[in-house]
Amino acid sequence: MLFHVEMTVKVPQGMPPAEFDQLKAREKQMAEELQRSGVWRHLWRVAGHYANVSIFDVEDNTALHDTLMALPLFPFMEIEVRPLCRHASSIHEDDR
Amino acid sequence: MLFHVEMTVKVPQGMPPAEFDQLKAREKQMAEELQRSGVWRHLWRVAGHYANVSIFDVEDNTALHDTLMALPLFPFMEIEVRPLCRHASSIHEDDR
Amino acid sequence: MLFHVEMTVKVPQGMPPAEFDQLKAREKQMAEELQRSGVWRHLWRVAGHYANVSIFDVEDNTALHDTLMALPLFPFMEIEVRPLCRHASSIHEDDR
Amino acid sequence: MLFHVEMTVKVPQGMPPAEFDQLKAREKQMAEELQRSGVWRHLWRVAGHYANVSIFDVEDNTALHDTLMALPLFPFMEIEVRPLCRHASSIHEDDR
Amino acid sequence: MLFHVEMTVKVPQGMPPAEFDQLKAREKQMAEELQRSGVWRHLWRVAGHYANVSIFDVEDNTALHDTLMALPLFPFMEIEVRPLCRHASSIHEDDR
Amino acid sequence: MLFHVEMTVKVPQGMPPAEFDQLKAREKQMAEELQRSGVWRHLWRVAGHYANVSIFDVEDNTALHDTLMALPLFPFMEIEVRPLCRHASSIHEDDR
Amino acid sequence: MLFHVEMTVKVPQGMPPAEFDQLKAREKQMAEELQRSGVWRHLWRVAGHYANVSIFDVEDNTALHDTLMALPLFPFMEIEVRPLCRHASSIHEDDR
Amino acid sequence: MLFHVEMTVKVPQGMPPAEFDQLKAREKQMAEELQRSGVWRHLWRVAGHYANVSIFDVEDNTALHDTLMALPLFPFMEIEVRPLCRHASSIHEDDR
Amino acid sequence: MLFHVEMTVKVPQGMPPAEFDQLKAREKQMAEELQRSGVWRHLWRVAGHYANVSIFDVEDNTALHDTLMALPLFPFMEIEVRPLCRHASSIHEDDR
Amino acid sequence: MLFHVEMTVKVPQGMPPAEFDQLKAREKQMAEELQRSGVWRHLWRVAGHYANVSIFDVEDNTALHDTLMALPLFPFMEIEVRPLCRHASSIHEDDR
Repeated sequence: MLFHVEMTVKVPQGMPPAEFDQLKAREKQMAEELQRSGVWRHLWRVAGHYANVSIFDVEDNTALHDTLMALPLFPFMEIEVRPLCRHASSIHEDDR
Repeated sequence: MLFHVEMTVKVPQGMPPAEFDQLKAREKQMAEELQRSGVWRHLWRVAGHYANVSIFDVEDNTALHDTLMALPLFPFMEIEVRPLCRHASSIHEDDR
Repeated sequence: MLFHVEMTVKVPQGMPPAEFDQLKAREKQMAEELQRSGVWRHLWRVAGHYANVSIFDVEDNTALHDTLMALPLFPFMEIEVRPLCRHASSIHEDDR
Repeated sequence: MLFHVEMTVKVPQGMPPAEFDQLKAREKQMAEELQRSGVWRHLWRVAGHYANVSIFDVEDNTALHDTLMALPLFPFMEIEVRPLCRHASSIHEDDR
Repeated sequence: MLFHVEMTVKVPQGMPPAEFDQLKAREKQMAEELQRSGVWRHLWRVAGHYANVSIFDVEDNTALHDTLMALPLFPFMEIEVRPLCRHASSIHEDDR
Repeated sequence: MLFHVEMTVKVPQGMPPAEFDQLKAREKQMAEELQRSGVWRHLWRVAGHYANVSIFDVEDNTALHDTLMALPLFPFMEIEVRPLCRHASSIHEDDR
Repeated sequence: MLFHVEMTVKVPQGMPPAEFDQLKAREKQMAEELQRSGVWRHLWRVAGHYANVSIFDVEDNTALHDTLMALPLFPFMEIEVRPLCRHASSIHEDDR
Repeated sequence: MLFHVEMTVKVPQGMPPAEFDQLKAREKQMAEELQRSGVWRHLWRVAGHYANVSIFDVEDNTALHDTLMALPLFPFMEIEVRPLCRHASSIHEDDR
Repeated sequence: MLFHVEMTVKVPQGMPPAEFDQLKAREKQMAEELQRSGVWRHLWRVAGHYANVSIFDVEDNTALHDTLMALPLFPFMEIEVRPLCRHASSIHEDDR
Repeated sequence: MLFHVEMTVKVPQGMPPAEFDQLKAREKQMAEELQRSGVWRHLWRVAGHYANVSIFDVEDNTALHDTLMALPLFPFMEIEVRPLCRHASSIHEDDR
């Protein structure tokens, strides 16, 4: 089941840069694992923004929530979630 | 070059249903052609809304504008465009 | 799987009252059937508004979309959808 | 009398994590007590958000206010309250 | 139980002025009756707006909803409702 | 002359609780004096919010401004002011 | 007593141009009279908008409301009112 | 050339009160000089707000920008600028 | 003097297409003349929108207002105006 | 390919002024280089704001993102990006 997820990172004020870099490295690692496992199906950068637009493929709402909550940057992100479904005019097998 | 496009259809008031159905049929046909040609790369329905979220792959801004303007439902849609680029954590070849 | 759905009815301008009453009667009938079948799990009126807040229990996003699209008043409603999941502090068996 | 309540937690900046964890533990305990007593009738997590949607069943506005004010996380939450009443199409005995 | 209610009138387009005047006369009559009965406890005009700010004193949410729904101008008003309760610093007996 | 005033308190970050309690005690005392003198004519709590809705009766705009500026919590409040006048349908002598 | 008033004209759809021109001529005449009498103290056009920013000098809120309600274009304007008072740094005698 | 300028002061967090008082004293002095020189033509307080509405008379956009940038409180103000021009119904010589 | 102007066209409902086409042709002609005369210095289409972003070079606010008011599509456009001035880091002679 | 970019600087709280001045000097230097190379095609100050409106000419979305990310003030700016294309009524060779 697909979800459209937008994440905007708010740099934590007062956190030492090295600590924030570590968080970002762990976020990158987890993002790559979730992509390899097929959960994080698409991941794009919005040009000019410290933000991404993503497509998640999960079993249900709870799986989506648990996945997002486990991201190292979760406490520093504004997240918007929209449930997707197949469009009647879609011809792509994987857009569902 | 990728663009994130959201389209929300505003049903035209006063248009005879048959005429609107014809517009929608032509829209569906053009959407399928643009998907087959690789321009309209993804097309999802937002659950509960008369709206879609799409990814377009075009040569430049002008090609995007001309493609959207040519859609039969263009005069009846609110459209939001955001330029995308490859995310540093993306491992998918086609997310760029 | 649960979804939080808010529906606000926009009375269609120019529709004869009798026709609108018929739509509302069909909407009421379908709402009652969906409640009996367990899909429309909760349905409340927001005091002072021509609007409801509802909880739907469906198999997936597509089932939600198809259910909402089939409502007779769908073309005259603004709908907001939010996916729900079990809260860690919830003790109610049916809040999931 | 039913109220629709949305609570969004804003993590207090500068509070030691242990202190915040203690607050959350007390919040969880009080939430469970209020659910057992029938006051906090429903409690759901909004997927992807540090937020809940709840239904409270209280005697009057003052009881609602006193209940919310007594929550340990009250100073760190944005709260939105909407009074509910029975929907004419509702068939559920407890949706009132 | 007190509620803060704001009503903004949207003049119905296309309604003959005489018919609208009749609606307003009936609205005025009902407003006066509800004030005499103690339900519509305060009624002010917001300077420069076709809008009022009001305080209603009703038994519960349902009574509020039924009262507002019965107003002749209800279909042409945007209504915002907020539940009130006694303020800890209030010394007025009737502000509760 | 009547004004509709909404005040939302923003707890000052970093202020010692004892100092804030003192401010609130002085605010309560001044609110009670202004109510006794007839200037702060109504004062309600909005259920679930650290906010009030009030009606002030002052000689002119300057008197309103000076009264609000003198409140101990003024630097920590968002204030919205709307001038009121007698509604044509009002039957209450004091709603003017 | 001074008020800051912004008026934005919404051209009435379906009104014959000649009738609207007549309304505007009457509005202009009344605006000039109110300026001569000192009530409409300042009147500026916002460049690029069918809107004005004005300063009214009236006895009280009711006088302001009655003046605005009597404008021929009142039913076709969105109006925003803000009460003004003398600024502590003002040296102009008439800015009060 | 006239401009409508709104300035809202955001008290700087962490600045010693004495330093802020000094800034305000210098702001007042400069405001008075600019009024005397005819540049800051009007200056009003919005009742209940730490904000002003002003009319500036400057040679061009650059002169406006330089004047605002030079205000001691500039770094702590939200500023909204709107270009004004003579209204066709204005009879005041100085409203242009 | 430079101004940043954004224009969004709202297609007039009920106007015969031929009449609207005529308006657009006259708009195009006037836009070209204003570009040749140096007043309409830049004109871009926002991709995906029936809107433009423009830079106008005029003598003063009044000249800007008169120019915009004279556009054939003025009654059907939402216009946003922002005064520009030379940026301290600009090296382009014509960006002033 | 052209993009319309708006940048609003948020002065970083707690950064020593000398450090911020250094950042601004580097930003100015880079802005001048990008103008000389033709990438940053236009750069204007919005009068009264610590903000600019700019036109960038880049090869694609990724080039735009990389350019903006490399600006020394990037972490302290809110950035809004809109893709532009040639307007059908434009006669300027460089507005594309």
